[in-house]
Order: sequence, then structure tokens, then C-alpha cells
Amino acid sequence: MNVMLFSNGKIAGNTQILEYGFEWIAPMIEKTQAKKLVFIPYAVIRGSYDERTEQVQQSFAQFDCEIVGIHTCDNPVKAIEEADGVVISGGNTWVLNRELHDNGLIAAIRKAVLKQDKLFIGWSAGTNVATPTIRTTNDMPIISAAILPALNLVPFQINPHYIDGSISGHMGETRDERIEEFLVMNPSEVVVGIPEGTMLQVEGEQLTYHSANSKPLKLFRHQSEAVTFAPQEDVQFLMDEGI
Amino acid sequence: MNVMLFSNGKIAGNTQILEYGFEWIAPMIEKTQAKKLVFIPYAVIRGSYDERTEQVQQSFAQFDCEIVGIHTCDNPVKAIEEADGVVISGGNTWVLNRELHDNGLIAAIRKAVLKQDKLFIGWSAGTNVATPTIRTTNDMPIISAAILPALNLVPFQINPHYIDGSISGHMGETRDERIEEFLVMNPSEVVVGIPEGTMLQVEGEQLTYHSANSKPLKLFRHQSEAVTFAPQEDVQFLMDEGI
Repeated sequence: MNVMLFSNGKIAGNTQILEYGFEWIAPMIEKTQAKKLVFIPYAVIRGSYDERTEQVQQSFAQFDCEIVGIHTCDNPVKAIEEADGVVISGGNTWVLNRELHDNGLIAAIRKAVLKQDKLFIGWSAGTNVATPTIRTTNDMPIISAAILPALNLVPFQINPHYIDGSISGHMGETRDERIEEFLVMNPSEVVVGIPEGTMLQVEGEQLTYHSANSKPLKLFRHQSEAVTFAPQEDVQFLMDEGI
Repeated sequence: MNVMLFSNGKIAGNTQILEYGFEWIAPMIEKTQAKKLVFIPYAVIRGSYDERTEQVQQSFAQFDCEIVGIHTCDNPVKAIEEADGVVISGGNTWVLNRELHDNGLIAAIRKAVLKQDKLFIGWSAGTNVATPTIRTTNDMPIISAAILPALNLVPFQINPHYIDGSISGHMGETRDERIEEFLVMNPSEVVVGIPEGTMLQVEGEQLTYHSANSKPLKLFRHQSEAVTFAPQEDVQFLMDEGI
């Protein structure tokens, strides 16, 4: 596997998408010799697929590899089969996941990533769909047809854009309370909160955590205190967790 | 109809659930002569049904009416049929809606509220399920079986706990952006954001908006600027909107 799961697209000061992760992406592109990446903009609701594709092309221009918007391909499955990797944008997780299913891309991407070790890069909603299900998305379920199973590239649930703060005076559930609710209903599972500016990487079977701002990963289990892990700490055990 | 849809349970300074709405609830209980209200705690995930039921019993003690937890009734449908009204707690909207469906309560509550004019009081998740679908919930979809259609007591989507602020530096979508995404996918619908400390009431066919803190209701339409309405302003047209 060569999988990079980013919390989000941009952090403060970034002008380009994934700018905070360029230094992590460069060696993975070199290692996998990826020349052609299929870009999936299905999560983009505000703004156009073309516009988001252009932004990603600008971000990846420095890596000397081609970015092709899947919406411009006649056959999306074939596009995955012929590419060296897959890049999935953030946006709305519900719409993204439905489109992946409706276009027959779940099996195609799983085969490409798990069997052929093609590069997979996702952020935000693109990270949510890399987990077993989208049950730990932050997004509003804006469409009638809700599909929860996702790509299941890693065996644990991720909560991207993880934040432990809340707006002063607001009485709605905090993120930690929402994750606690998830664990009450799913006590055998774990949830990994990754703050903005961070990334989980799987190379082969090796899981590592990267942070552009030293923010730790936060691991939630049922009826346990959440545990934080700094970027240099060992999180390999997570690959044996989950469903 | 005698329907009261609260944004949330408590605002700053409240010690009891719905304390900020006691003055609005009192005349509705008197008018409907409600003596026995069935309380539905299915949304409660952190904490117990009994505990939440006791809290609501304490809140309603002043109104001289009985609060019966539906989880203590042998036959939930019969409990709705024999009661003078229904009270639905906040918590997780996904779990609540699934339990309403699984216990056969959708038709039972619709009949009680729409045909028999029984009192309906909901807050937060309890308000989400009073709309056509739960597509404008803020809650995490923590269970595998996602059911989106809900009680459809009012013909428009509500976003409870509505807030227009965000946490400084956080790059995740704002509430307004999430609602904008909803409207891109559902351009013929409207979304009504109700801030904490506010309530929408339907008496007969008459819709009114109430606020304990002067915060306005915010109406979102596709490709339009959101419009705010103060508590004294006419929002009756909303009853002709939606699906």
C-alpha cells in the first residue's frame, strides 16, 4: 500500500491545496513512479469539478506528474485501471461516497490500492471514504440516498478536521462528545481524530503519522480516556484495530 | 396542530431542560389540556433514558402534567395513542430516527399530531425528526442503518443549534457552507436555521417564531442571500414551502 490520508486541504498560510504536505508527497510520488494520477472531484459541491481539478493540477505541477479529472474520462473504472494512482478531494462525504458507489469505483479503487499498490492521496472527505464507513464524517447528509460503507483501505474510522475546541457559549455537542456517541453505539471500534495540518500514511504495512504543526493524533476508545500520539510515536498497532 | 420545535435544550444560565421556553410551553399545555405526555428519550446516547426522563419530569413538574418515558411502556404505539402529547429529547438524530421507525412510531406520532392535534414538543434532534427528513442534522451518522425520512410535521428542513460563527483558524466547513451544499443538491427546498434559545411553533396552521435572546431565524434558499427574521416578523409563508 501507498496511502496518504490528509486531515484537510489547506492550513493557514497555504495558497495551494495540500501545500503543507508537499514535502511528504514528493518522496511517495518518486517512490511509486507515478506519472498519471486520476483526480476525483465528486465531493465538490460549491464550485465546479473543473475548477478544483485545475487547483490540484497547480499543486501537483512541481511533481512532474499528470492530473486527470475523472469527470473528463469516458470510462471512470478504466481511468482508475490505467492510472498510476488516485487523488480524492474534500467536500461533502455523502455525495462523494454515493458517486464512488454509483460509478462502480469502490472495487476499482480497492483493487488499484490494495492489490497493485498504486498511490492513494485523499483529504477531508477523501480521507473519510478511505475508512471502513463514513460514520465519522463531520458533513451534513445532504442527499436522500445515504450509503455508509466506503473504501475500507484502513481498518479504523478516522475523524478528519479533528478539533477539541468549541465555540464559546455554543451548546451543541463537541467533537469529542460526537465521537463518544459513536463509541457507545460501536464499542468494539476505535476512532482516530486527525487535526488539520496532519496526515496518516501507510507504506506497505507500515502506518506513520505526520504533522505540519506538531498537533498530535487523538485515539478514542469506548469507556477510555482519549490518548494522544505525537508524530514520532508508534501508531502501527492501529493497523490491527477495527473492523 | 400544536407543535413546538425548539433549537436546543438549555441556554447559558438554565438549570432545567427547556427552561428558556417555560413561558411559551405553559399556555400550550393549558390550551391543549395535556395531562399525560409520552417522553421519547431514544436520542440519548451519553447517559441513560431514565436519567433524561427524570430531568424532563423535573422541568414539567410545574405544569401539572405527567411525563411517562416511552421506554417504560410495554407498547410504544399504544402509549402514543393513549397520551395527550409527545415530547422528544435531543441527542443523536440518526439513532432517534431509526428507533422511531423501528418501533412503528412514525405513523402513530403523525396521526396524533396531524389528525388529533395532540401537543408535540421537540428540541434539537427532536426538532430534526419533525421535519421531512434528517438531511439538515448536525449529528454524526454513528449507526450503520441510516434512515433519512422523518415525521414530516412541518414542510421545510430545520437546522437546529444554528450558528453563524466558527472557531478561529478552523478550516472545516462553516454551518452556512454546509447549508449551501444542501441547497446545491436540493435547489427547490428551503432550510430554516434556528439559533439556540429559539423555537418555531405551529398552532392550527399558524407558524410563529420565538426567541429567548432576540436572535433571528435565518432562511436559506438556493442562490439567494440568506434572510433573517426577528421573532415578531411574519414567517407564515414557510408553511407553503418545501416538500
